[in-house]
Amino acid sequence: MAPRSPRTPLNDDLGLGLQAGPNRGVNKDGTFNVRRVGLPRFRPYEFYHHLITMGWVPFLSLLFLAFLGTNALFALLYLGIGMDHFVRAGGGSLQDRLLDAFFFSAQTLTTVGYGHISPKGPLASAAAALESLLGLLSFALATGLLYGRFSRPQACLRFSSRAVVAPYQQIEGFMFRLVNMRSNQLIEVEATVSLSFQDLASNTRRFMLLPLERSKIHLFPSSWTVVHPIDETSPLLGMTEADLRRAKAEFIVLIKAFDDTFSQTIYARTSYTAEEVHWGTRFKPMHAVGPDGVTELDVRDLDEVAGPEAADRA
Amino acid sequence: MAPRSPRTPLNDDLGLGLQAGPNRGVNKDGTFNVRRVGLPRFRPYEFYHHLITMGWVPFLSLLFLAFLGTNALFALLYLGIGMDHFVRAGGGSLQDRLLDAFFFSAQTLTTVGYGHISPKGPLASAAAALESLLGLLSFALATGLLYGRFSRPQACLRFSSRAVVAPYQQIEGFMFRLVNMRSNQLIEVEATVSLSFQDLASNTRRFMLLPLERSKIHLFPSSWTVVHPIDETSPLLGMTEADLRRAKAEFIVLIKAFDDTFSQTIYARTSYTAEEVHWGTRFKPMHAVGPDGVTELDVRDLDEVAGPEAADRA
Amino acid sequence: MAPRSPRTPLNDDLGLGLQAGPNRGVNKDGTFNVRRVGLPRFRPYEFYHHLITMGWVPFLSLLFLAFLGTNALFALLYLGIGMDHFVRAGGGSLQDRLLDAFFFSAQTLTTVGYGHISPKGPLASAAAALESLLGLLSFALATGLLYGRFSRPQACLRFSSRAVVAPYQQIEGFMFRLVNMRSNQLIEVEATVSLSFQDLASNTRRFMLLPLERSKIHLFPSSWTVVHPIDETSPLLGMTEADLRRAKAEFIVLIKAFDDTFSQTIYARTSYTAEEVHWGTRFKPMHAVGPDGVTELDVRDLDEVAGPEAADRA
Amino acid sequence: MAPRSPRTPLNDDLGLGLQAGPNRGVNKDGTFNVRRVGLPRFRPYEFYHHLITMGWVPFLSLLFLAFLGTNALFALLYLGIGMDHFVRAGGGSLQDRLLDAFFFSAQTLTTVGYGHISPKGPLASAAAALESLLGLLSFALATGLLYGRFSRPQACLRFSSRAVVAPYQQIEGFMFRLVNMRSNQLIEVEATVSLSFQDLASNTRRFMLLPLERSKIHLFPSSWTVVHPIDETSPLLGMTEADLRRAKAEFIVLIKAFDDTFSQTIYARTSYTAEEVHWGTRFKPMHAVGPDGVTELDVRDLDEVAGPEAADRA
Repeated sequence: MAPRSPRTPLNDDLGLGLQAGPNRGVNKDGTFNVRRVGLPRFRPYEFYHHLITMGWVPFLSLLFLAFLGTNALFALLYLGIGMDHFVRAGGGSLQDRLLDAFFFSAQTLTTVGYGHISPKGPLASAAAALESLLGLLSFALATGLLYGRFSRPQACLRFSSRAVVAPYQQIEGFMFRLVNMRSNQLIEVEATVSLSFQDLASNTRRFMLLPLERSKIHLFPSSWTVVHPIDETSPLLGMTEADLRRAKAEFIVLIKAFDDTFSQTIYARTSYTAEEVHWGTRFKPMHAVGPDGVTELDVRDLDEVAGPEAADRA
Repeated sequence: MAPRSPRTPLNDDLGLGLQAGPNRGVNKDGTFNVRRVGLPRFRPYEFYHHLITMGWVPFLSLLFLAFLGTNALFALLYLGIGMDHFVRAGGGSLQDRLLDAFFFSAQTLTTVGYGHISPKGPLASAAAALESLLGLLSFALATGLLYGRFSRPQACLRFSSRAVVAPYQQIEGFMFRLVNMRSNQLIEVEATVSLSFQDLASNTRRFMLLPLERSKIHLFPSSWTVVHPIDETSPLLGMTEADLRRAKAEFIVLIKAFDDTFSQTIYARTSYTAEEVHWGTRFKPMHAVGPDGVTELDVRDLDEVAGPEAADRA
Repeated sequence: MAPRSPRTPLNDDLGLGLQAGPNRGVNKDGTFNVRRVGLPRFRPYEFYHHLITMGWVPFLSLLFLAFLGTNALFALLYLGIGMDHFVRAGGGSLQDRLLDAFFFSAQTLTTVGYGHISPKGPLASAAAALESLLGLLSFALATGLLYGRFSRPQACLRFSSRAVVAPYQQIEGFMFRLVNMRSNQLIEVEATVSLSFQDLASNTRRFMLLPLERSKIHLFPSSWTVVHPIDETSPLLGMTEADLRRAKAEFIVLIKAFDDTFSQTIYARTSYTAEEVHWGTRFKPMHAVGPDGVTELDVRDLDEVAGPEAADRA
Repeated sequence: MAPRSPRTPLNDDLGLGLQAGPNRGVNKDGTFNVRRVGLPRFRPYEFYHHLITMGWVPFLSLLFLAFLGTNALFALLYLGIGMDHFVRAGGGSLQDRLLDAFFFSAQTLTTVGYGHISPKGPLASAAAALESLLGLLSFALATGLLYGRFSRPQACLRFSSRAVVAPYQQIEGFMFRLVNMRSNQLIEVEATVSLSFQDLASNTRRFMLLPLERSKIHLFPSSWTVVHPIDETSPLLGMTEADLRRAKAEFIVLIKAFDDTFSQTIYARTSYTAEEVHWGTRFKPMHAVGPDGVTELDVRDLDEVAGPEAADRA
């Protein structure tokens, strides 16, 4: 039995192409599984994005190389002007002059300016003034990026690696859960769960929002089990595990929250394919009361389920 | 046949003057086609706005000129104090003294401070201290602006250059589409489409919101075709291409989205005049499945339409 | 006739004390006319607020005085250590040593560090190292505040100085209008208008929200006339100018908008007392079509009204 | 009589674990009373959070220690290279060389660079260039953090230390009140109040939202008394003080507001246990009209109640 197609006009959609391929639309880490082609080769509007999102090792390497490169360029400029335009104690060999030019450049770019080498005459002075101006501006960008990367608001929500179809009140429910791994206080947390599946008749993918038991919680101190009740309005009613797999079903999850510590709205995404949904099992509680009466949440239990016998009660 | 005027009180409006002229109200790039006159000549509250939105070439030129100008001013101040208040090796000609004063100023403003020229006595020292203070504060503004420009949240949505009136389910629909040219992950994307037209009877412009098939999508990994269904509630029902042109119709588009990468809400705007709406054609799909099974979106196909024969099916 | 009191439970309120005094609750510039007393004398959590909102002249004066004061303190410290712990060319008189200490301090605090005076021995070096560290940290605060002030999002909406009660469709309406004096593009502009009046029977002030013709506009390129229709649901129905004045009526306006240029939500507030509401007049249009066909908005016409004869048509 | 359990599916929840312990779920200061265990020992994603939220004394101490430590490390590096690679006037004893190395490092890290000690030869110059680069980058982080801490948006709402059950219109109401201790203008203030209680039959905790007289106020110039009317829909109807204590009831409060001064959304939280709810008393007004006719709010009266006789009128 195929999932029932949406008959009523949907006011919400995933925005995934309806001709989407056979693979999952959203990866486990929340990134989209769509490749954009035909983009222009040179995209200056992407610089900031790449500089903020690239890894720390490439970023710091790039910074270091830019520092070396700029110093090398200005060193060549100073050599071209002639090191006799500088007050310096260094020797006259090319290597000595090159090193002096390079380190004078570094001392100018960083505005440390010891002064044991210093420009003499207008040409060298002008080049040095230009370099110190450039140094201030480019270090402004570099340090802005550094701090921007460091302080970028990022959710650190961990989702259970699998969803379950488990007894829920008198019926069954599709459930997954999440915890906040950070100390940030998250509030006003909202969940949106969409089901994407292959309509085997028309061979296109369809999308629909799944109604949730609760779509928003005001405080999020511990864990949240998001539940889609499989009632008479659910497209999952009457479906089996095999039906879901045949339709290549995918449950796409979008979480929105307000990070109270940094006054920022954050989002997190993930998805569950039919293979990642376990039937006839339920999540084990993650809470316990500690010896001092304080409620404890053990984040290691996020994926713990209780085995098929628990589902027998359904 | 003229578009039907709104009879029910609208709770939404474009905010464009109802006496708006014969030209388009919103330009292709989303700016408003309204000229404000009578503004005061000196508007200090606009400085920041202009410094952030001006082009990069004027901005950097302005920065460079401000650097030169400040140095020139302080050089004159130092000359006025007298270069004999400075420890320096330079000659005594006016040009020598001027150059020394200028480059001492540059070394002070940037706080590079080599020290081969240094102030001697209270007057020169006080002027130099003042300049280094000024330098720190003004470079704070300059570099703040530089980074603010660099990191300013900006949508890079590209809209199809033309809208189409094409078959949609059993009826027709007004459609356009858009893609995200950036790598930023956009979510919770909302569209608002308004129709503005000349009421030929009263010779005023009227505005109304057009209901959309979907006004919001939760994820936006690829492209989105925004559809206004021309059903019995649509003001476009029964209208022809010539009717629209006669009424100087304009479709004004406002897109709102959340940029997940930078935790910022962004907006994009555009408009379609009657001349930019094509009838009897439909958009070609932009998606394909790549050789590795991954869905591919070719952004070069954004404007591709399928020709009139496609509309025959409607 | 007194305004009708709200009988239905309000879900919205102004939050002004219901025992509010006889004066206006909100000043023309949007600040609240309430004095808070009993606050603790020392409120460190207010520092940032005051530093951001104080005038430019006090702020820059404070910055300059802090610079002078810190230098004076460190100059005394250096004198205490003894100027013989410094390499310097200056004379031995107290004044010479004080000036050298002061300017050495300035050169250290700003990190300009010419080096013609430099610390000798551990005590002076340690004090100088401490000062340069302090300088970097305190200039970080100072320049952060400077840029924070400069870039603080602020609406520059101008409201008509008076509201009018003018013909609106077949009935009358309470109206005021506003323009954006900045080049910032404002979108999704929302208005909330509340009526506050003295209930003469119970001698308390009452508050109620006034329904608006349009409470939100999507684009705001020119001017917006906010209208409360005086229909059968309006508390103003049947009231005269004298009734409003007797009840010390006050119309409190809250505008919310999204500044597209800086991706910031901004608010503006104002209020109209009964004395500031003109009856039997209407606003003159602010729009005209320029010689080149472009719509022009003359912001100088914001307060222009058309005289009582216009109201006769109502 | 136990509070009535929610029978209708709730769309809102506190997100507190339903197995929550016997203690209060939310502390007086709004932090969650839940302990997370099993977290990884090394959590780099928490660095920023800790650096922003730790106290000022630990933060500044950490900064100072990092400054000392970095200088000590580079001093050792310079000693390793050999102080004969530096131009300096200092003596040859190890202590002299160590101090010179240390203070040269400090002058390089802060980019003050007096130059009375300066690197000679490529090795020392390269190490110094590296240190000045590192100094610029790490001071960028340090000063960014410093300003980030200073400017972090924080509500300074003070809640009445106790809630009351007092006469409200013809019935009773659960009430508490709050004032803004800051000069920041808060607008669009929203309150959410949840009741958590022990279901004595099932021995689990239950949560439900309490409907409020007003859940949102547009302006917040003075104080706000939040009221939950105990009408026929209230779970508190018919309950006594003893009932609430037996069920270990807790009222959890979440306040959301927009800080108009800094264009930031802020939140505040608190909770009232059954012991902190006073029955048969009511809040005294905090407002008075000053001698100049201006409304005055005395924040010292926040906790003032009127005694049991006031409740007799109910």
